[in-house]
Amino acid sequence: MTAAETEAFLRSRWVDVPDGVEELDPARLAPGFRAGAAACGLKAGGQTDVGLLACEAETVASALALTANASAAAPVRVCRNECDGARIRAAAVNSGNANASTGEQGYRDALAMRDAAADALGLEPAAVAVAETGVIGVPLDTPSVVSGIGTVSEGLSERGGAEFAGAIVTTDRAPKHCTVAAGGVTVSAQAKGAGMIQPGFATMLCFVQTDAQITDPDAALRESLARSMERITVDGQMSTNDMVLLQATGDAGRPLPAGLLDAVLLQLALEIVADGEGATRVARVEVREAMHDEEAERVARAIANSPLVKTALFGRDPNWGRIAQAAGMALAGEEITELGPDRIDASDLASEASEAEIGVELGRGSGGAHLYFSDLTYDYVRINAEYTT
Amino acid sequence: MTAAETEAFLRSRWVDVPDGVEELDPARLAPGFRAGAAACGLKAGGQTDVGLLACEAETVASALALTANASAAAPVRVCRNECDGARIRAAAVNSGNANASTGEQGYRDALAMRDAAADALGLEPAAVAVAETGVIGVPLDTPSVVSGIGTVSEGLSERGGAEFAGAIVTTDRAPKHCTVAAGGVTVSAQAKGAGMIQPGFATMLCFVQTDAQITDPDAALRESLARSMERITVDGQMSTNDMVLLQATGDAGRPLPAGLLDAVLLQLALEIVADGEGATRVARVEVREAMHDEEAERVARAIANSPLVKTALFGRDPNWGRIAQAAGMALAGEEITELGPDRIDASDLASEASEAEIGVELGRGSGGAHLYFSDLTYDYVRINAEYTT
Repeated sequence: MTAAETEAFLRSRWVDVPDGVEELDPARLAPGFRAGAAACGLKAGGQTDVGLLACEAETVASALALTANASAAAPVRVCRNECDGARIRAAAVNSGNANASTGEQGYRDALAMRDAAADALGLEPAAVAVAETGVIGVPLDTPSVVSGIGTVSEGLSERGGAEFAGAIVTTDRAPKHCTVAAGGVTVSAQAKGAGMIQPGFATMLCFVQTDAQITDPDAALRESLARSMERITVDGQMSTNDMVLLQATGDAGRPLPAGLLDAVLLQLALEIVADGEGATRVARVEVREAMHDEEAERVARAIANSPLVKTALFGRDPNWGRIAQAAGMALAGEEITELGPDRIDASDLASEASEAEIGVELGRGSGGAHLYFSDLTYDYVRINAEYTT
Repeated sequence: MTAAETEAFLRSRWVDVPDGVEELDPARLAPGFRAGAAACGLKAGGQTDVGLLACEAETVASALALTANASAAAPVRVCRNECDGARIRAAAVNSGNANASTGEQGYRDALAMRDAAADALGLEPAAVAVAETGVIGVPLDTPSVVSGIGTVSEGLSERGGAEFAGAIVTTDRAPKHCTVAAGGVTVSAQAKGAGMIQPGFATMLCFVQTDAQITDPDAALRESLARSMERITVDGQMSTNDMVLLQATGDAGRPLPAGLLDAVLLQLALEIVADGEGATRVARVEVREAMHDEEAERVARAIANSPLVKTALFGRDPNWGRIAQAAGMALAGEEITELGPDRIDASDLASEASEAEIGVELGRGSGGAHLYFSDLTYDYVRINAEYTT
């Protein structure tokens, strides 16, 4: 296995690919999983907008991470209240309607979607997760979605990964998915995201399947999310619908190789931020020498979410002054050593590369944090000012 | 005095103008004050870029509010360390160079500017404030500025308000200043601002002069700032150079009429936000029924700084879903009543008016807060992506 062979998917210089990773056809799901999709009229132009993902194995270990947004959408509340996150067998997803801020009817609609999938697959309702993404505050066309779930359930395929990934996108420029093998196990994963991206304890929609044995899926997912989806921001906005589902059958009889889940989730996270609404570039800001990690995190977020830094990234302007300003805002009231060009390396902002590195040394201690963020462009304004509710 | 007569300056529907306010020629300063300006080559095209403001009265009560940014510029640190904020007689200002992140030389340069003004005016150095605004991280051309201060000091005028206001602007589309009289006292004020605007404990550059008696200028300034400059945001960015100076001679032998300082500062604040970089509209978001005022403030800031809400303001899209999302992000982890169109009034976003009102009722208690914010436009991106350091 050479580096070139992994380039198709695990291609970012920021992803630490474990030894011996083989990339498989991304349509192919991890053994034991099947998926499919249909077009139900939620999205214009006949695009697929309802997806179904199912695990054939009776015993599956799973973990579900949900947004902390207080305006959480109906599907998130259904997952939180009505599902058993540790034994999720299947997931029903629509793209086109977030089913957020839709009241009691919205909750009933998310339940109906969930129940339709459970019925069609012969599963207990508590073993089915439901995820939705799209416009907020519009009633769901539940009859179409329920009918679509029935249709999809009859044509699920072991090679349905690409179809499923295509059915969950909204303003994404491309679907995001992969299938990799290493150490005798297989991992497949699909994600979507583009705007409203600064996950809090979870992220955009993301589904990960494997035949590896994972004894504590919740811990495994939390730890990998902390190093991937929690490290990105497009516009500083926590979504109402974020969800990540990890499912492991254990049928391979082996554990996940160290670093594999991290690599897959980080690559997907980087694809999400690179596909941020209107984005042309991604930067990685690394803050070192903070008083503690929390302080470094605060400074990194202030920099990554500053519209002045994000427009400098777009304009290829090595404007370290804006980085000093954002860091100083995050440290308001503190006495700090002045942040000049000796402490801020912003030269990469001016590079022609699509990926830029920014380094900040606060000189206050040994705390550190890093974040990946996209630029703020004319297209971000166009997409969000011309989008009609 | 009719409403029409005050329209020229105190024109926003959001400003509560006290009875009997008379608007005077804005070039005219409050009695006892003189000002002037010169072009010293810091700004291109021969625009004025050095201003001097001086109070003739020996006894003056003053208050100085400075940015809390940890990367505070040299002039801010000079004011904090070397000036007596309670008896400021004069202020020396340059626009074009923020003198921020400029190290020890920058500090010496700000001191030299301050000392040149003290020398020229025959004042103790501790009675002179210094303010600077413009590009960060570039050494100041101190000889030109010092020489300019000397020139300006010889031509100070009681009618120098407009000239001074013109010398402190940077990316502003227009100078911001006024002179008003009421209850036997006169107040003149000048401000600038456009980007990097979300003051913390202070604001952009703003100077207020009066002949009224103010027994506790510091309290008076803090209270009025809390209701004006602290209520605005353009891009959520706390500047390195924010400063407000209030000077009162007391020569009129009368106090300030109630509400007058509030009205003047709020009008200037609204002009600053309306002149936000690339801005075409201003919105006022009022959050009610929060658990407490701090919670309302947090929700209002999340809404006012959301790029999704700001682009909806630009696109005239009454997108209450983005407001529910931003509020939910600010309340992450809390249990709240769903925020639907019955609790969010965003209809004004779609209006043709340049000022829009947004109302949010959280249904959690009796806390409240409001903020004024500008929209996010193509021109914001153009100004900040094409600006060269």
